[in-house]
Amino acid sequence: MTTIYDRDLDKTPANYEPLSPLSFLRRTAEVFPHRLAVVHGDWRYDYATLYMRCRRLASALARRGIRRGDTVAIIAANTPAQLEAHFGVPATGAVLNAINTRLDAAAIAFILDHGEAKVLMVDREFAPVAEAALAQAKNKPYVIDIDDAAVTAGERIGAIEYEDFLKLGDFEYPWQGPLDEWDAISLGYTSGTTGNPKGVVTHHRGAYLNAMGNAVTWNLPKHPVYLWTLPMFHCDGWCFPWTITMLAGVHVCLRRVDPAAIFDSFVHLGVTHFCGAPTVLNMLINAPAEVKARLKPGVKCMTAGAAPPAAVLAAMDDMGFDVTHVYGLTEVYGPAVVCDWHDEWDALPLPEKAAMKARQGVRYHVEEDVTVLDPQTLQPVPADGETMGEIMFRGNVVMKGYLKNPKATQEAFAGGWFHSGDLAVLHPGGYMQIKDRSKDIIISGGENISTLEVEGVLYMHPDILEAAVVARPDAHWGETPCAFVTLKNGAALAADQSGSDAIIAFCRERLAKFKCPKTVVFGDIPKTSTGKIQKFELREKAKALP
Amino acid sequence: MTTIYDRDLDKTPANYEPLSPLSFLRRTAEVFPHRLAVVHGDWRYDYATLYMRCRRLASALARRGIRRGDTVAIIAANTPAQLEAHFGVPATGAVLNAINTRLDAAAIAFILDHGEAKVLMVDREFAPVAEAALAQAKNKPYVIDIDDAAVTAGERIGAIEYEDFLKLGDFEYPWQGPLDEWDAISLGYTSGTTGNPKGVVTHHRGAYLNAMGNAVTWNLPKHPVYLWTLPMFHCDGWCFPWTITMLAGVHVCLRRVDPAAIFDSFVHLGVTHFCGAPTVLNMLINAPAEVKARLKPGVKCMTAGAAPPAAVLAAMDDMGFDVTHVYGLTEVYGPAVVCDWHDEWDALPLPEKAAMKARQGVRYHVEEDVTVLDPQTLQPVPADGETMGEIMFRGNVVMKGYLKNPKATQEAFAGGWFHSGDLAVLHPGGYMQIKDRSKDIIISGGENISTLEVEGVLYMHPDILEAAVVARPDAHWGETPCAFVTLKNGAALAADQSGSDAIIAFCRERLAKFKCPKTVVFGDIPKTSTGKIQKFELREKAKALP
Repeated sequence: MTTIYDRDLDKTPANYEPLSPLSFLRRTAEVFPHRLAVVHGDWRYDYATLYMRCRRLASALARRGIRRGDTVAIIAANTPAQLEAHFGVPATGAVLNAINTRLDAAAIAFILDHGEAKVLMVDREFAPVAEAALAQAKNKPYVIDIDDAAVTAGERIGAIEYEDFLKLGDFEYPWQGPLDEWDAISLGYTSGTTGNPKGVVTHHRGAYLNAMGNAVTWNLPKHPVYLWTLPMFHCDGWCFPWTITMLAGVHVCLRRVDPAAIFDSFVHLGVTHFCGAPTVLNMLINAPAEVKARLKPGVKCMTAGAAPPAAVLAAMDDMGFDVTHVYGLTEVYGPAVVCDWHDEWDALPLPEKAAMKARQGVRYHVEEDVTVLDPQTLQPVPADGETMGEIMFRGNVVMKGYLKNPKATQEAFAGGWFHSGDLAVLHPGGYMQIKDRSKDIIISGGENISTLEVEGVLYMHPDILEAAVVARPDAHWGETPCAFVTLKNGAALAADQSGSDAIIAFCRERLAKFKCPKTVVFGDIPKTSTGKIQKFELREKAKALP
Repeated sequence: MTTIYDRDLDKTPANYEPLSPLSFLRRTAEVFPHRLAVVHGDWRYDYATLYMRCRRLASALARRGIRRGDTVAIIAANTPAQLEAHFGVPATGAVLNAINTRLDAAAIAFILDHGEAKVLMVDREFAPVAEAALAQAKNKPYVIDIDDAAVTAGERIGAIEYEDFLKLGDFEYPWQGPLDEWDAISLGYTSGTTGNPKGVVTHHRGAYLNAMGNAVTWNLPKHPVYLWTLPMFHCDGWCFPWTITMLAGVHVCLRRVDPAAIFDSFVHLGVTHFCGAPTVLNMLINAPAEVKARLKPGVKCMTAGAAPPAAVLAAMDDMGFDVTHVYGLTEVYGPAVVCDWHDEWDALPLPEKAAMKARQGVRYHVEEDVTVLDPQTLQPVPADGETMGEIMFRGNVVMKGYLKNPKATQEAFAGGWFHSGDLAVLHPGGYMQIKDRSKDIIISGGENISTLEVEGVLYMHPDILEAAVVARPDAHWGETPCAFVTLKNGAALAADQSGSDAIIAFCRERLAKFKCPKTVVFGDIPKTSTGKIQKFELREKAKALP
């Protein structure tokens, strides 16, 4: 029904603008033009320069014919070019497809064909795999080399170098925001442990909102000094290219996660904030004492990407880091759930405090709903800390869908919720805790076993550096837990039957018997570039065990 | 042109929700149900209770037939009912019309008729004026009394008392967000110094964005303790009912601006943040020393509503307040411009520092553009600190328009910009500074005189408590500056010709001769309820001077 408020009160150019995180760069360049924006080795430049370079990139792409809805792909480390692509590419109306640098040529070829990239920017370090991918792909994008001075290996394989390409663009290019805030801003392929990866499409509206959501949730100050430990190709760096720019902070680039470089950055660059997967935190915890001595207390760290064991969170806390635990997926722009801390939890005994922090928590302010539902009935599970259901999201920080895959999109959004595939419980008070990925859960003698719960116990063992638990097929039980374990240097345990027995005994003291590993395998644990343990590979290994 | 990103990637209930600040209350009530939400005298309650009470209000209104696009008006001080109305009313789809409590009966009657209020909530203190207004108005809304225990005067004039009305509602009422984020959330009448006031209509999208904008711009922490010095009927309390709720902070209600109560709240309630017009700051600066002794340094204050003289900002700074200067209008949801501080300004000598802080500044992160344009050509004025133009806004934090007034709306939005009516210069670096309201500027012998500039000098005089300058008609010059001045208690100056001469001499030392007042009038200065000086009245007085 039309009311008095529906008449003569329409949208006009004065009072409506599509939301886009691109507008943050213009504001910061106008308000703080001479503040430091980017540090990359010895190279530093300010926001006036960053804005000018992004405008040149947009202009040069537009002059090459890049238009709204075209795809521009990039394979690069966390460099200025990667950061600039997060502004310059969408500023043409095109969609940024930041490709995981650890993928093999076949996977990259699939992505180039499926995403129909018209341009591919290639960091010299990744030229060999990109060249092989281009040879396999049917699609032949225009290739731009990124000849980063910090890289000596790798050939140039493109038509032009990035800095020369920028020179073709107008540094005063008057970019327009998106036609519609629902327009795509980014295309990111899920790691897809089976079959071909799916292309997650996100939009300007969601990127704008989650960029603000990060600032509010993490209570980020003006001018944070942010270290790029998290790959920008991972859910667009969880929207932090836009968040840090909005706050006129410093982007400290980092090509490679290296504990010595990270600790150095706290002292020499005054880094105040960084993000990383639990495996990154584990590297910091296990760094040599002389490296760790360089930490100034109070550095803030946001972690996600895999459920961090409570022991890892407690160790970070002990070192003086201020850790915020978040959770999300590519489909929800990176983090969209936070373990929003209650002051009264500070007074809990350490193990309980760490257990609280290990919970995934509650929705971001900008997400409408995140909860744990029965995947069949879509009814909420009771908040009893025991009943498992699937984590589901609803709101503005959920992807547009999967590119050219309406079936997968419809399945993912069935019943009006985005189905995460993560199994969790709701604790009293409404904080959720992940128990497992749907596909990772072990069913042994009809009982569900959360591999994360078993891993949490393994990480408490003083000799264990890393641990992962998967299902091993078993004639009698159906499946049994199989633990893959990496021991620390100088561990008292031996990597043999005696060590295996000791670990199983350690678990028996802390877990119900049916949850304890029946098998322990020592050795390195395969991980994705973002630090996620590749359980798919481990399951294959467990299946092949004699 | 349709691209691959426009196919099979539509909005669904899983990935699209109209933006609304109502969602912040639900989140906070779910995540921090037992945190203190509201303090009103001895009465305190938590977020679970606030949410329940707002749901009851929404439910009771809906049961009385209130629907989308209906108007619900309120005349109240900063009480729990006023805060709850900011959630409970829009939760029914209705539009909240918070009426300025200082208006006379005729103005309120006009508003009730023009806004077509179906319900009117009346705080007992304002029952007499409300009763007179209802007698004059053609519209006869359903009247609810708010019988605040803190008020003893005033009769009940309504059909039911607020607390009884709440009991008619369901505390589990499953409210829905708006159908569309462009739906109206609030109707606020401008003070309109001439003719009838205009009804500014704002929407859920803008209220959501500016609620977040306040948090990012002011870098608000989690759980701020916020004192309600600013009337909530003034641009919906600059969106702070929603901002403070989003951050799970404490709303400390305050019926009346009283320096002793304000300083007490710092000590006894741990107030960390408050907002107020420059006249409120002036009251704090001029409070007795024993009252001021109760200040703890570091309390954060946001000021706007009239351009604060540099001397007032400097005095607040001296007392240990941390002042953020913002600027806005009802049409832009309250503040939408901030004097975004540069660290290097800390090192400036005090007078220059105060002059920097007196600048209005730059746009909020959530506003698309705010700048100073030539009102004829809509071209930007040069950033020379001298050329005057009109401040204009563009973006998502601009009203829908004026209710039932398409002509005024079109004029306000002419050329794709909202015309503020405030005259300003752009300084090098892009920070704007208001010189005057278009209607306040004095034109003397063909020269423009900024009344704010003259007032800034008057406020430097140690004997002057308040000052306002307006045009006085003059046969020779056209207009000349006429100063209205209130002296401090115990001032050395006398309120006679000798005082007048001394003040003019003081100005001559600091201003070009043509800018100095020709006339000085001693006495009280009339102000609106929000602390804005009523220059219209002063102009009438100046005109009538013998």
